[in-house]
Amino acid sequence: MALIVQKYGGSSVGTTALIKNVATRVAAYRQRGDQLVVVVSAMSGVTDNLIRLAKDIMPLPSEREMDMLLATGEQTTIALTAMALHAMGVPAVSLTGAQAGIVTDGVHTKAKIQNITPRKVHALLNSGHVVIVAGFQGQTPEGQITTLGRGGSDLTAIALAAALKADLCEIYTDVDGVYTADPRIVPKARKIEEIAYDELLELAGAGAKVMQLRSVEFAKKFRVTFEVRSSLSGNPGTIVKEETKSMEDVVIRGVSLDKNQAKVTLTGVPDRPGTAARVFRALAEAAINVDMIIQNVSHGTGAPTTDLSFTVDKPDLLKAHKVIEALRKELNFRQIIANESIGKLSIVGVGMRSHSGIAARMFDTLAREGINIDMISTSEIKISVTVELAKAEAATRAVHAAFLES
Amino acid sequence: MALIVQKYGGSSVGTTALIKNVATRVAAYRQRGDQLVVVVSAMSGVTDNLIRLAKDIMPLPSEREMDMLLATGEQTTIALTAMALHAMGVPAVSLTGAQAGIVTDGVHTKAKIQNITPRKVHALLNSGHVVIVAGFQGQTPEGQITTLGRGGSDLTAIALAAALKADLCEIYTDVDGVYTADPRIVPKARKIEEIAYDELLELAGAGAKVMQLRSVEFAKKFRVTFEVRSSLSGNPGTIVKEETKSMEDVVIRGVSLDKNQAKVTLTGVPDRPGTAARVFRALAEAAINVDMIIQNVSHGTGAPTTDLSFTVDKPDLLKAHKVIEALRKELNFRQIIANESIGKLSIVGVGMRSHSGIAARMFDTLAREGINIDMISTSEIKISVTVELAKAEAATRAVHAAFLES
Repeated sequence: MALIVQKYGGSSVGTTALIKNVATRVAAYRQRGDQLVVVVSAMSGVTDNLIRLAKDIMPLPSEREMDMLLATGEQTTIALTAMALHAMGVPAVSLTGAQAGIVTDGVHTKAKIQNITPRKVHALLNSGHVVIVAGFQGQTPEGQITTLGRGGSDLTAIALAAALKADLCEIYTDVDGVYTADPRIVPKARKIEEIAYDELLELAGAGAKVMQLRSVEFAKKFRVTFEVRSSLSGNPGTIVKEETKSMEDVVIRGVSLDKNQAKVTLTGVPDRPGTAARVFRALAEAAINVDMIIQNVSHGTGAPTTDLSFTVDKPDLLKAHKVIEALRKELNFRQIIANESIGKLSIVGVGMRSHSGIAARMFDTLAREGINIDMISTSEIKISVTVELAKAEAATRAVHAAFLES
Repeated sequence: MALIVQKYGGSSVGTTALIKNVATRVAAYRQRGDQLVVVVSAMSGVTDNLIRLAKDIMPLPSEREMDMLLATGEQTTIALTAMALHAMGVPAVSLTGAQAGIVTDGVHTKAKIQNITPRKVHALLNSGHVVIVAGFQGQTPEGQITTLGRGGSDLTAIALAAALKADLCEIYTDVDGVYTADPRIVPKARKIEEIAYDELLELAGAGAKVMQLRSVEFAKKFRVTFEVRSSLSGNPGTIVKEETKSMEDVVIRGVSLDKNQAKVTLTGVPDRPGTAARVFRALAEAAINVDMIIQNVSHGTGAPTTDLSFTVDKPDLLKAHKVIEALRKELNFRQIIANESIGKLSIVGVGMRSHSGIAARMFDTLAREGINIDMISTSEIKISVTVELAKAEAATRAVHAAFLES
């Protein structure tokens, strides 16, 4: 008998028919003797509807009241999921985040879980119930309803798995695992059986849309092994866990392509101390996320100048342009060049640590395909390059073939 | 500066535009210096939608889970109402029933309020906030979410007014008060300025659809004066309060017509002790509500027999027929006659106690109109008669003219 925490996202509980499907799956686990805690999100579309109602009332609603409003979405799903289990003769009880003992800080709309007191959950499990818990929400010690922000239901599941010392945590979603690349771009992409937290973090940070970074970070911090899998099939998914020695045998775990970056270059920046700091402080103050940064000092005639390049999320490009333009007099650069036609290609794997020549092999592969590399950045387990957008998908396929198709 | 509890029903908060309208009204009260607690229902249609989702999952959902589900309706409205006040620059905070300190027993879907600990409400009022409270819901001492059943939001408002010792309790609805008769039947019906609890109870019990009986009974028990009025006009409504001496000056407060009754007659019932008890015990066991009861012993030839008549709600008629049919052998009556074509006309007023001849005047009025009276029943402050359904509206107009148009 295992204690299993399962989490079903909005698309897995989007209709009453899908909720019944979830109940069928839960009932099957219970049949074989497992204890189950089921975390559910709001039915897909429900949260958006609530946000629309709020925006109809005022453009920037109070965050406390947004939490009061949005928490109803998951509360609806837990009641319906419990009913669906009752309909199959399975004893089940629904709990709001507050009732499940999920205590958060008071930062509304993006609260952090402070601790979990799973006394009630334990008692209900011990009396033979499946416990259905509302994801994405908690309560402050003062009794205010809070929500955990994007990916919050994953966080609820992982935190509950940690607090309950669960044997297994399953994150059900509409894909059946983590792939070596996006199958829409790379037809030969394969599902990954096991992946280390850090690898998933780097892949997600590099544009692979599997899970929110903070849920993975949370799982890593509390050493919760979890499985990403599909609620619509019986296939095994991808296990996300602590790095093991054998993981290094695989050089590259996966490839990802981020087409949502844009590149900004300042040319002819006088080479003075503090210039880069000034640029990136101004961007940070405008809440613009900067990803890659490259600087090259050119030693031509006259005073040394540099070209400074960086990438930002495409939707932030215009804002970044304005922020930099405002610094023109102060920094005395020559011009601003914006380029939206780039793709950021990354390879990720803990195997890089013990294998040498990975970067060279990647660059070589791209060169053979006639693809020019623009920017390069590396971390301990990741190498990212930007290439021309039109060639980015071909580049992804080539790199996948070189490292992941044997 | 007064402390006012206002309650807005589902039709008063049915859209975001209507919620803004409520906020405008609340802001105006606050402008003149009042402290306000605003109780709101679910937006009209929302509760029905939730019930539909539940029925889609199973025909008879668990009552605990129904409460979990339905409580989201009011929680949505309180958040939106608080936002609408914020948009007008009015400080406001929403509270669920549980957060407002409303403690109930554990009878899910029709819980009774046990007590209210309005500490949080008081604190928020004292710090200058309008407090928005979710109607219809509470929490057991063990932290289970409960709902109060039909008319529950009125109950929340009246109970809060009692607990807070409010100066005024206003029940906003889609009619602008209690009328001397249904204006759709009696064009000359007038709005009543003041009415005693008992009069409203008798009128509501006699078919006038103003408020649920239990809310009025609760107000009577805790001596909460309240006003029924419209959220769409500035007109004063009807004050419902304890009976005063001057109320007896008015002979009849109002007239009501109930077209939802059906009459069942058992003919030729042998006149033996215990017969009536047997009939009505069987009906009660089948959860059939019986309103009027008439029995007449006929002393013809042979053993004395009686005709026993009673009225039930029309939807219960078939069930009542079956229950009685099952007793045929035991009671040995001659036949069952069912009549759906009746109307029950009632006149209500505490003035009846001090004025004589009211019944005679009512019967006289009907006789002059050529309307035959079938059954008669009376209470201390009410006289009810059943008449032929086709003539019931004319009868209502005639009686209204005789007592209420001078």
